[in-house]
Amino acid sequence: MEQNKGFHVAVLGATGAVGQQMIETLGEKNFPIEKLTLLSSARSAGKKVHFKGEELVVQEATPDSFAGVDIALFSAGGGVSKEMATHAVSHGAVVVDNTSAFRMDENVPLIVPEVNEEDMHKHQGIIANPNCSTIQMVVSLEPIRQKYGLNKVIVSTYQAVSGSGAAAVEELNEQTKAIMNNEPYEPAILPVKSDKKHYQIAFNAIPQIDKFTENGFTFEEMKMINETKKIMNHPDLQVAATCVRLPVATGHSESVYFEIGEDFVSAEEIKELLKNAPGVVLQDDPENQIYPMPADCVGKSDVFVGRIRKDLDNPKGFHMWVVSDNLLKGAAWNSVQIAESLINLGLVK
Amino acid sequence: MEQNKGFHVAVLGATGAVGQQMIETLGEKNFPIEKLTLLSSARSAGKKVHFKGEELVVQEATPDSFAGVDIALFSAGGGVSKEMATHAVSHGAVVVDNTSAFRMDENVPLIVPEVNEEDMHKHQGIIANPNCSTIQMVVSLEPIRQKYGLNKVIVSTYQAVSGSGAAAVEELNEQTKAIMNNEPYEPAILPVKSDKKHYQIAFNAIPQIDKFTENGFTFEEMKMINETKKIMNHPDLQVAATCVRLPVATGHSESVYFEIGEDFVSAEEIKELLKNAPGVVLQDDPENQIYPMPADCVGKSDVFVGRIRKDLDNPKGFHMWVVSDNLLKGAAWNSVQIAESLINLGLVK
Repeated sequence: MEQNKGFHVAVLGATGAVGQQMIETLGEKNFPIEKLTLLSSARSAGKKVHFKGEELVVQEATPDSFAGVDIALFSAGGGVSKEMATHAVSHGAVVVDNTSAFRMDENVPLIVPEVNEEDMHKHQGIIANPNCSTIQMVVSLEPIRQKYGLNKVIVSTYQAVSGSGAAAVEELNEQTKAIMNNEPYEPAILPVKSDKKHYQIAFNAIPQIDKFTENGFTFEEMKMINETKKIMNHPDLQVAATCVRLPVATGHSESVYFEIGEDFVSAEEIKELLKNAPGVVLQDDPENQIYPMPADCVGKSDVFVGRIRKDLDNPKGFHMWVVSDNLLKGAAWNSVQIAESLINLGLVK
Repeated sequence: MEQNKGFHVAVLGATGAVGQQMIETLGEKNFPIEKLTLLSSARSAGKKVHFKGEELVVQEATPDSFAGVDIALFSAGGGVSKEMATHAVSHGAVVVDNTSAFRMDENVPLIVPEVNEEDMHKHQGIIANPNCSTIQMVVSLEPIRQKYGLNKVIVSTYQAVSGSGAAAVEELNEQTKAIMNNEPYEPAILPVKSDKKHYQIAFNAIPQIDKFTENGFTFEEMKMINETKKIMNHPDLQVAATCVRLPVATGHSESVYFEIGEDFVSAEEIKELLKNAPGVVLQDDPENQIYPMPADCVGKSDVFVGRIRKDLDNPKGFHMWVVSDNLLKGAAWNSVQIAESLINLGLVK
């Protein structure tokens, strides 16, 4: 990265779970910042946030908040993104949007830098950050697709509640305490705050993330299906997903079955490939019980892969287990990585 | 069931998690019992158990404990089963064994009454009860196989800790309390008590159930693969499994992808079929957020199925979500059902 210039970076949604992680990640990764502007709704404006020893006051986002901003990281909900993105772009900022507002827009690149960084050249002011559960999967599958081809993916997810925001984590904690103390607790947030019914998440598994679409899949499942094809530039890839919420605070896990284009590849060859893949850490030693787990991935930027084994029937089929911190590689870190790529590719003024 | 005769029933492993459920289930289902003998290791002998208002004393199991016993329900570990089964059989008892000791023995029928009750006619004194995660899956798949054929199954499980016994449930509870109180807790039981390493289960997901086999699959996964083929009398069925332990006390969930033998079957037709299938309760109404969850299945004998939808690429492919109480249909209730079938089919003297 060029370190000779600092950039004016704005974070919209600065007080949310992902916004907070974005600010931390910008600091930890020493992102070249000249000025950091923190923006939120009127409700959260005035809150104070620490960044590299300084105390910054969060301001209410308005159309003029983006004057002079080079890079704007958005994570304040799809509605806010749709409202604010054009203002930011008209002020000359490049928007890295972490909501689903623009992901499937054909004029908006959907980027995981390890997979399709070159698609960023086509940007028209907005670059979309994919859904958390999609990112970790494509990071692990792309090296395989490049070397052996990829025809089919069937994924079942084990997703953490922080994907639903900080209030959902609070609900998990309070509900767990209540159950341990035999006290009543009325679920109000999970599985989907704005949906009709809410269910217990503590000591349970809820097979609903986001609302249902008409075909019986949820929006979360359709995001994994459609975004994977777009990121990999592989419209014919067959993808199916079942998305499930677990009583885990942070760290998404995925049981991934995939079929490659060749017959005679061994699990060892897939392991060797992923051992050297960008953004991937291989944790695969069954004899010593080494495999990824969500409790181990929290606070780490990488995608952890293990339990790689060849299907017993289909010579093209494999199974693996993929774990990552959904707030980092699944959101904040991937957004900051996109911002880094913008600089490295000379795509930001 | 004939109600005109009572049987002498023995429960071996009477103080364990499944043994306790067997005794409760025998009572709840009004099993025709003339005499109930409760057996255990020397360590647990002397404990008192209530059955239908009576207090029974658990006795140490010896080769002669089975004199006069008609039906012996075994759930005290594979080693004990191997030691005691021949003694029970030589005394004229029929053994219903809930361990993995005899499941793949070609002379031992492996029975889920809704699926292959007729295989019981071949018994030579021992009938095996399948693995918990296998049972609920085959109950949901068999009606589909019968009507449309079945070529392929890929399952990812979400399994409860009670599958590892009462001590594992205690570990989940104590560990959860410790984490909520920021106190240290050293895991000692999960994922596999006799394996080298133990990991946190509270707020985590562990992709290991039972030990690993040489092909990279665990024994639990190989049980699901091999037992499914045997129970369905379908050696060519392609089955793959990834088995994961969750911080849930009771209730196994499964994300099941399957391919049938026909192209033009709708999800509605599969739902209609399962609505009327033995042992199955359909809970499938996405618009009203109706789907099975482990927290709702505890204490119920049925297999709950929902989220049935057609694959978006393969016209033969479907996805569904299957939940059941692993201690009941997955163990105690299936064993008692086998005992009921023994009587109904006239296979016990």
